[in-house]
Parts: sequence; C-alpha cells; structure tokens
Amino acid sequence: MTQLEAARAGTVTPEMQFVAKREDLSPELIRSEVARGRMVIPANTVHLSKKLEPMCIGVASSCKINANIGNSAVTGKVDDELEKLHTAVHLGSDTVMDLSTGGNIDGIRQAMIDASTVPIGTVPIYQIIQNVKDPRDITPKMMLDTVEHQAKQGVDYMTIHAGVLLEHVPLTRDRVTGIVSRGGSLMAAWMVAHHQQNPWYTHFGELCEIMRAYDVTFSLGDGLRPGSLADANDAGQFAELKTLGELTLKAWEHGCQVMIEGPGHIPMHLVKMNIEKERELCHDAPFYVLGPLVTDIAPGYDHITSAIGAALAAEAGAAMLCYVTPKEHLGLPNKDDVRQGVIAYKIAAHAGDIARGRKNARVRDDQLSKARFEFDWNRQFELSLDPETARRMHDETLPQDVFKSAKFCSMCGPKFCSMRITQDVRKLADDAARISSNLTPLSLAK
Amino acid sequence: MTQLEAARAGTVTPEMQFVAKREDLSPELIRSEVARGRMVIPANTVHLSKKLEPMCIGVASSCKINANIGNSAVTGKVDDELEKLHTAVHLGSDTVMDLSTGGNIDGIRQAMIDASTVPIGTVPIYQIIQNVKDPRDITPKMMLDTVEHQAKQGVDYMTIHAGVLLEHVPLTRDRVTGIVSRGGSLMAAWMVAHHQQNPWYTHFGELCEIMRAYDVTFSLGDGLRPGSLADANDAGQFAELKTLGELTLKAWEHGCQVMIEGPGHIPMHLVKMNIEKERELCHDAPFYVLGPLVTDIAPGYDHITSAIGAALAAEAGAAMLCYVTPKEHLGLPNKDDVRQGVIAYKIAAHAGDIARGRKNARVRDDQLSKARFEFDWNRQFELSLDPETARRMHDETLPQDVFKSAKFCSMCGPKFCSMRITQDVRKLADDAARISSNLTPLSLAK
Repeated sequence: MTQLEAARAGTVTPEMQFVAKREDLSPELIRSEVARGRMVIPANTVHLSKKLEPMCIGVASSCKINANIGNSAVTGKVDDELEKLHTAVHLGSDTVMDLSTGGNIDGIRQAMIDASTVPIGTVPIYQIIQNVKDPRDITPKMMLDTVEHQAKQGVDYMTIHAGVLLEHVPLTRDRVTGIVSRGGSLMAAWMVAHHQQNPWYTHFGELCEIMRAYDVTFSLGDGLRPGSLADANDAGQFAELKTLGELTLKAWEHGCQVMIEGPGHIPMHLVKMNIEKERELCHDAPFYVLGPLVTDIAPGYDHITSAIGAALAAEAGAAMLCYVTPKEHLGLPNKDDVRQGVIAYKIAAHAGDIARGRKNARVRDDQLSKARFEFDWNRQFELSLDPETARRMHDETLPQDVFKSAKFCSMCGPKFCSMRITQDVRKLADDAARISSNLTPLSLAK
Repeated sequence: MTQLEAARAGTVTPEMQFVAKREDLSPELIRSEVARGRMVIPANTVHLSKKLEPMCIGVASSCKINANIGNSAVTGKVDDELEKLHTAVHLGSDTVMDLSTGGNIDGIRQAMIDASTVPIGTVPIYQIIQNVKDPRDITPKMMLDTVEHQAKQGVDYMTIHAGVLLEHVPLTRDRVTGIVSRGGSLMAAWMVAHHQQNPWYTHFGELCEIMRAYDVTFSLGDGLRPGSLADANDAGQFAELKTLGELTLKAWEHGCQVMIEGPGHIPMHLVKMNIEKERELCHDAPFYVLGPLVTDIAPGYDHITSAIGAALAAEAGAAMLCYVTPKEHLGLPNKDDVRQGVIAYKIAAHAGDIARGRKNARVRDDQLSKARFEFDWNRQFELSLDPETARRMHDETLPQDVFKSAKFCSMCGPKFCSMRITQDVRKLADDAARISSNLTPLSLAK
C-alpha cells in the first residue's frame, strides 16, 4: 500500500506518525491531508528500509526546500556529489534531487540514496537519453524500464514530463526562450520526430503501476515552463498545467502520490496568481516551484532574483521551493554555490511560513533577536541559518574571544551602538513616561 | 529657491529637465510631482556646482537604491571609503550615504562629496556625538551648527530624527529589541536626561531655514523603527510616523523637500500595509525604506532577507530602498559587501519596477533573455547587473573563448541543453501544429 492508499483506508502509518512529530501536527491531520492528496510523503519503500527519515510536503505543514545537485557530462565525480549532498542536508535542505546527466550516473544515484536521510528525487529522462544516440531513438519501453530501474534503487520521487502534449508545442512558437525544460524539449522533439503523442502520457497507466509498486511520488514536470519573464503565464504554460491536473486525478486513481512542478521565471505581481491557478487546475496537489526568478538581468545572483519569487510563492501556498544557485544559467554549481542556494531558500521558505502565520514559525526569530539585544554573540551565531558564516563575518574585524560578549560590533563601534545606548530600555521608557506626563504639551514651533 | 519652490512657481529647473531625460518622463510631470511633494530632487546647491548629476526619488519614477558606506571608530580610512563609493556608484547605486562615525569624519565627507556624481546623504547626529563626552552634553545649538556645517560642505540630504518624541519612548518599553536606530536612541537618552522634548522637534523651524538655504532634502528618520519582527508595526513605530507626517507639512511650508524613512524588520504580509500607512500619514512624501528584513534568522545573509522585503516595498510604492549588506548586524561592510548589497538591491528595485508596470521596465530582461536563447554569452554578460561576476562564474568551468559562443554551458553539458534541442523552436512548433491537426484525438489511457 502507498501512503495515499493507507491514508484513504484510515491507517496512520509509522511514516505519518514520524512526520506528525517533526511538524508538531496531529497524526490525524497528516493522514487526512495525505488521503485528500494535498500532502505527500515521498518515501520509496526501498529507501525507507535504509536511512530515509520521512518528511512531508503539503500546504498544511512548513514550507520545504529542495536542492538540485548532480554532475553533467562536462564535470563532476561521485565524491563531489556526495559532498554537495552533505552540505545541502547539513544546511537544511528537505529533499535533494540528483540531476546527473553524465558519467557514472547509476553509481552516483545509488551512492546518494544509500547516504541520504532525505528523500531523493530524479528526472528519469536524463538517464534514458544517455543510452541513445538521438532523442528520437527513445522508446516507451526504455522509458518505463528506466523508471522501474530507478524505483528499485530507491528513488523517492521522479519528475515526469507527461503533460507536454503535441498540441501544446505550437503554443511555444513565438516565445523569447522557447522550451527551457530539458525534459520538455526532449519530449517535444520526440513527438515531432515520431508524429506521435508523448509516451509518458500514452503509457501513463503502466507508469502509475510501477510508481505505485514502490510508492514513488510523481513530481509532474512543467516541460513548458517559461524561461524568461517575457514567456511567463502564456497559453503553453497553462495548457500543460491543465493536462497535469487530469494526470493528477489519474495517478490518484492508481493510488499514487502526486505533486506538481511550477516555474521558473515570473514577475512578482503574477506569482500569487500562478499558485492559485495550480491549486484550481490540479485539485490542491502540492505545488513544487522552481524559484521563480522575478527578473532576468542578474546572472550570477539568481539565488537572489529567485528567492524573492520563492518567498512570494511560499506566502501564497507553494508547498516546496526548488532552489536556484548563483551559478544558474552559467555553469554547474559547486559546493559553495549549493550553500548559497540552500540558505537563500531557507530564508524564502521561512519568510513565507511567518507570513502565513504557521504555528511557532517566528519562535527562532524572536530568540535570535533577544540574543542580539543581549549582545550574546555566540547564541546569535548558533540560532542563525549558517552559524559558520555569521561567525566568520564577525571574526573578520573582531576575531578575539572577548568581543563575543562585547556590547557592540565593528559596524557602529562602541560609542554608537543603539542597543547599548538603550539597553536598559525599560528604565528609559519608564523615565520617559514619568517625565512626559509632567511636561506641558508642546505645539510644533513655527 | 529650492526645487520645491521653483516647481510650485511653475518653473521647470535645469535639474528637472535633466531628471526628465534620465527617466524618460516629461519635464512637466517631474515639475508637478516635485511641486506636490511626491518627488524630491536631492541636490544641494554646493554639490550641484561640483560633479552632482541630478536624480529624482518618487513613485512616478523608477525605484532608486541607496548604499550606506562610511567608517566606524573601530575601522576605516578615507581611501577605503572612496573605493566603496566608486564600487557602489559603478554598480548602480542611485545615492550614497556617508555614515562615518569615527576618525577623520569631516575629511571623509568632503572627499566623498567632491568625488561623487550621485547625491550624498548623512546623519548629522553621528558627527555631533563625536564632539561630546556624553550624549546629554549635546545642545540644540551644536545640532543646528553641525547641520549648517554639513550643508555648506554640500550634503544633499540628511537624516533627522525629529519625530521621536518623549511620549513615544514609553511605547518601546516591552519591545524585544528596544530602540535600534542610533539617532533614535541618542535622542531618547537626551530627552530623558534633560526632561525636555526632542530638540530637532522644538527647533524644527530654524532647522528648516538652514535646510532651505542650501536646498538640503530632509530624510525624516524613523528613530523608533522595529529592530526585529517581534517589534514590527507597534504603537511606537506608528506614533512616530504620525509625527513625521506633521513635520512633513511644516517642512513643506518652509519650502523644503522631504522624504520619509521607514523600517527595518517587517514580516512579508505586513510590508504593503506599511507603505500604505506612510502614504496616508505623510501626505505622499516619498518613502525611503531600509530593507525591510522579512526574517531575523539569517545574519550573514541579510542582503537576501532584506531584498525580499525591499522588492515587496518597491512593488507597493516605496520610492527608494536603502541597501543592507551581508555584514549587517555583524560588522562594518567592506568593498565586496558593498557589491553584494548593491546588486541585491538593484534586483529588488528592478523587480518592483517590473511588477508596477513601469514604462520599459522589462526591456533589458527581454534583451538578456534573447541573448541567452541565442547563446550570445558575451551579450548576456554585458546586459547583466554585474558582468564581471557573471563572466567569472562562466569562466570557472569553461574559461576558453570558444565557449563564449558555444551552444551549451557546463550546467547541462552539450547533449542536454534544452535551448539547443529546441533552438529552431519555430520549426518545431510549426511541425507540431501540422502533425497534431492530423492526429486522432487521444483520450488518456486508463
């Protein structure tokens, strides 16, 4: 039984129990959200028997983030990828996708699954394409076999671009950046070469049975997501989203868990609308968005352009945010890029949780602010998203231990610290209250 | 005559002409916005006679950003500050504030004004405090004299914490982080020590006359801005904002230009409300916000926590965004921190401009996206906010010149580039249209 089938049958699985504890929510709420399809617990039964610690993705729980790692044909080795995995999970990534596209692709995946406590996602088409000379040589059988192979390895969720249909491709004709999803572009090329519909779509029932057997969660890919602000919210994007809604119902019939992937590049004022549209067309299946980037002009800083959009998406109800690193559009991320991406997205997800008023979301903020006001520098570092970096920056100008309890920092210097000046703010406030009540009211001098 | 007085008299000054050209707006629109107080042109007549290139701040024009530089008593020399000034302006900062609080404070300021093509702002209380042993030794005369001294040097706008009144201080009693504005905390301490009202407030008329004589723009400081999410939107903050509204009207009577400073730390869902409240209480005077940070848990990354809030503020109508660097709360920013802060804020301001539908705001995005789709790497770098960084990141894995026209990057590798796969997207789209019209409609297989 998949988590979805168990939930429907009224069973609270050990994984739901575990997740409920992590989220500080009731097991029954978790069960009912999973049963309704509004929450997923991506937990391949094979990975569950190894190190996986179950987690959930859904709007009723805290907003999650994913880090994409993996090599490309140009660069990358197993150890490098395991180091990136460790960095991502250490800094708080809730899931990790292995997007390897070259070299020892099977070995990297297995090593990651074996090592990972968080769910691992993949995009099977990236492996399928490895085994053919030309995309047109791909067969439906290869596709299904590869999914089964990866499911057996223990992959927890898979991106499947089943919503790109032949009739959607003409809608991309006048785009500025065409089709930017690798999976989407491959399926488009395949369909045109074969004069046939997308095999993920035509073979969706068989696919569901494989996914169901291991409880692999569908991450229905947005093969026609916009690759620039100019292409945001166009007919192609929304035609595919509607198809993803149909596929969601179909997968649910098969007892499979489903989330929906979203863009990409969207100007700020259209982010919320995208989230609402997904909810409507895809029947509340959890929305898993990539960014979105809110401007196209900052290559080298797209962790920031996209963290803005991601925070808006989180506030509007996205369930998981796929990070973007500073290297996006420029090259394969290294370990430090992974760090930058993960922290930017922890910020976005947390800011969204606060804005949505999630239970206890602000507790850590308040604790850190209190430590800040009390000049407890070490506690401030401990409570911060990246203690190592916070400490290093403080050390740059005031490395000595004594300054970790000093009542100032190098930003303002000892004489100018507002917190020092008003540290006894209660006394100051009480004095001011006493004095101002005796003061003759002043009218503003001309 | 100040720009405001000229505008009221129906005169389009050369500065308004210049600004109109920069903004691609009509000179008459600029004049009417300045006359109405909804736009300022911070241009001290002394600085105008040197290198200043006039710019405007107001909701009818593009959103601006400010970079804070300046030394502290702990660290910083003239040359370092001039280098930071150069970095900030080179990367697109629209104004720069010299917040020096130690050492050769007069010399740094003069050097910055002489070198700067953008308006320079200061916080005069930072110099006033240099000349006394204890804040209580400050006299109203010292305050006015220092303002006049800095006005004569050519400072274009000054932060004046005139809105912190004695009766507001009790409202900060139960705050988590008390009073975090340095100017605000000094005025609070002074008032309590002297049993008197804020001298900036009681001597506001005299102050206006000095400001008017050089056309120094008021930047009415928010001395009670929240220093944590816990303190956001509290009674103290809004009591002061109301007073700033009164002072705005008074300054306008004197012919002075005014903008209003805003916080600080605000959760995402309250940002827009803050902008609306300022507009209402301060009669549409341009709003100049610091961040705001949307979470407190990321010291070391507060350029990102605050860029999210700044983008929201820009979308909601803030006229200028004061940057926050990664070093905020940890130490004095160095040159690289200035770079990180400026770029994060260029992103926020630009994203806000796009979301507000400002004329031509998206042109550069579309040009860059087009270059991206065409694999014109050099053009992509040129169009990006930080060409040097974008190129460096691309060079990390593919340094050779030949790769600057290669139809892929190291992120996906040659086989996997979606843009290469679909580069002839028009042909692909046309083929798909032809084929799909002949295809028997498929219903989704069970």
